[in-house]
Amino acid sequence: MTSIRVFRIPFVLVGLAFAVSLAAKPAVSQEDALHWRMNSLLYPKLFGEAGERFAETVRRLSDGRFVIEVHDRLVLDQETFGALESGLIDAVWGSAGHHHREDPALTIFSGFPFGPDPAVFTAWMQSGGGREALQAIYARHGMKSLYCGILPSEGGGWFLEPIDGIEDLDGLAMRSFGYGARVLQRLGVIAYELPGQEIRPALETGLIEAAEFSLPSIDAELGIAEIAGHLYFPGWQQPVTSLEILMPEQRWAALSDHNKAILEAACGDTLSWTASEAVARQVEALDRFRTMGVEFHRWPDEVLLALRKAWDEVIAEDVANDPVLAKAWDDYLRFADDFADWQSRTDVEWAGSTRQAGESQPIEE
Amino acid sequence: MTSIRVFRIPFVLVGLAFAVSLAAKPAVSQEDALHWRMNSLLYPKLFGEAGERFAETVRRLSDGRFVIEVHDRLVLDQETFGALESGLIDAVWGSAGHHHREDPALTIFSGFPFGPDPAVFTAWMQSGGGREALQAIYARHGMKSLYCGILPSEGGGWFLEPIDGIEDLDGLAMRSFGYGARVLQRLGVIAYELPGQEIRPALETGLIEAAEFSLPSIDAELGIAEIAGHLYFPGWQQPVTSLEILMPEQRWAALSDHNKAILEAACGDTLSWTASEAVARQVEALDRFRTMGVEFHRWPDEVLLALRKAWDEVIAEDVANDPVLAKAWDDYLRFADDFADWQSRTDVEWAGSTRQAGESQPIEE
Repeated sequence: MTSIRVFRIPFVLVGLAFAVSLAAKPAVSQEDALHWRMNSLLYPKLFGEAGERFAETVRRLSDGRFVIEVHDRLVLDQETFGALESGLIDAVWGSAGHHHREDPALTIFSGFPFGPDPAVFTAWMQSGGGREALQAIYARHGMKSLYCGILPSEGGGWFLEPIDGIEDLDGLAMRSFGYGARVLQRLGVIAYELPGQEIRPALETGLIEAAEFSLPSIDAELGIAEIAGHLYFPGWQQPVTSLEILMPEQRWAALSDHNKAILEAACGDTLSWTASEAVARQVEALDRFRTMGVEFHRWPDEVLLALRKAWDEVIAEDVANDPVLAKAWDDYLRFADDFADWQSRTDVEWAGSTRQAGESQPIEE
Repeated sequence: MTSIRVFRIPFVLVGLAFAVSLAAKPAVSQEDALHWRMNSLLYPKLFGEAGERFAETVRRLSDGRFVIEVHDRLVLDQETFGALESGLIDAVWGSAGHHHREDPALTIFSGFPFGPDPAVFTAWMQSGGGREALQAIYARHGMKSLYCGILPSEGGGWFLEPIDGIEDLDGLAMRSFGYGARVLQRLGVIAYELPGQEIRPALETGLIEAAEFSLPSIDAELGIAEIAGHLYFPGWQQPVTSLEILMPEQRWAALSDHNKAILEAACGDTLSWTASEAVARQVEALDRFRTMGVEFHRWPDEVLLALRKAWDEVIAEDVANDPVLAKAWDDYLRFADDFADWQSRTDVEWAGSTRQAGESQPIEE
């Protein structure tokens, strides 16, 4: 998860920007017209732009009668529920895990370590019970979400020096976040949850020796590749990042069928777009990194195995502490079993397939 | 491809149904209201229902002002372009390969042997140049298509007796279609292109000893599982089936920006839905087959290798004969290379992963 709390923006400034925004809100006259303020919890380059695209689709679909004004982190993660309840904002663009302080069970709905790829995550959410499980959690808070986007795997992290085995992780200072950080800590990593813009300076000054933040294309915006020249794959800590629009249940219930249809279709359409577009951007980013001389590595199997064991312990603890998370997790495991059976049968990779041959190529180092 | 020409419905009957349909068309009064007749080339159970869902989304998004009436194979594949040009129908719900008689280069845009999975196919179509390549082909015929759906892998075929090696295919009488049939013929299979409803009787009377038709959930509707008890995986011949709405270019150009937005978002939304829902139905279908005593098999590697070699020959011949196909194919190969590089790096499967362990389980026989 790339969720970043911006500690350094004084709240008074946020409040000022908000007051200006309220003043700028145009009057609406048509009976059926809507003007929403949607707070985006993702940096613009962090596929906050998917939220802009979503809002533009809603505008086009409504022929201009449903306008969603996107504000970039005007309200911070931890103030989201309050701002929605008070009506300061109408909706939020983000990922379920942004609200883990309000409900830890939300965390797995943003994607989780060693979890499914985008296609499988989407099948779970849309047809495998994931949507219902998430809705049951949000309903406890009077909230409603629509599943609107999916980003592919993060990178596995940027390192000043290569990681040859588990022992190299012990004592390593690394920027990390959420579940990934909790897993790495079990292997001795000293995890720092730094905001994006502080990662490069922290690497330059030697505060940290490694960093995992987000998708490679997003990491590139932060200049990390210019300092830490070793990029590891896979991004086991976050194989997907889901996107959603969140709103109070009452606000959803008050919408006309027409406007509900507009939000739902705009979500489905944005979901299709993110699934493709986000991968295309990673391919481009990797090309750029190659020309910069970044070295790509695959994690040694022993490291992946140790990380996987640590993750199994972390999720077991959380499940034991939260019956709602336990139910959602159990639902997911049942779905994943069924899906894996289907996937393994239909996969055309086998000894001798060119796709398989491509995958077994040594990774340049 | 499950494209089936219905040879036995007399055209006079089709014409009659059409006349009734025209009489039933309601008058539209609002300036911006539209009433389209969309011909579906897919059987209702063959995800023609995705077309119904698409039409319903368009109705909801337009608040009832854009109504698409879905007709089930009122016009047959080979009459589609003429019916669109004459205005007898306004749009077609199907897959690009349905129109291979008009342009063989369209065939690969329905999915093809040993091709990409749904996620990769969609990335190619949406962000990898596939849409532009398809549009260049349709433009030669004055047509415009929107990419609206993706179905997962077909089954690899139903057999009366197990296939232990390449020699068992030589002389085998089998229902097959399109590229799959051409590949199988190179291994000595006698391929019959039977319509869906004739497959079960042909198996019962011994005309054929095997059949590949479509997705397992669709095959189940035809009662094939009750006769041929051996189901093979993977469905190498069609790892995906794409869905589209096709219309004359002029009709698209004449739409308002609002109505274009409605069609585009309804397509994107239907695409998300099909990707998930179609997989969920295969999982259910496999469960039903298990209770019926169907035996699942994975193709022997030597068979897949021989099929793959035969496919390479088939596509090389077609590419040599059609420069437009050659360009589209070249574009695809370039995209597939880039994508495979990304996919192989982000894949969390490795020796020791539970997903990998699941995949290496022996398949019950």
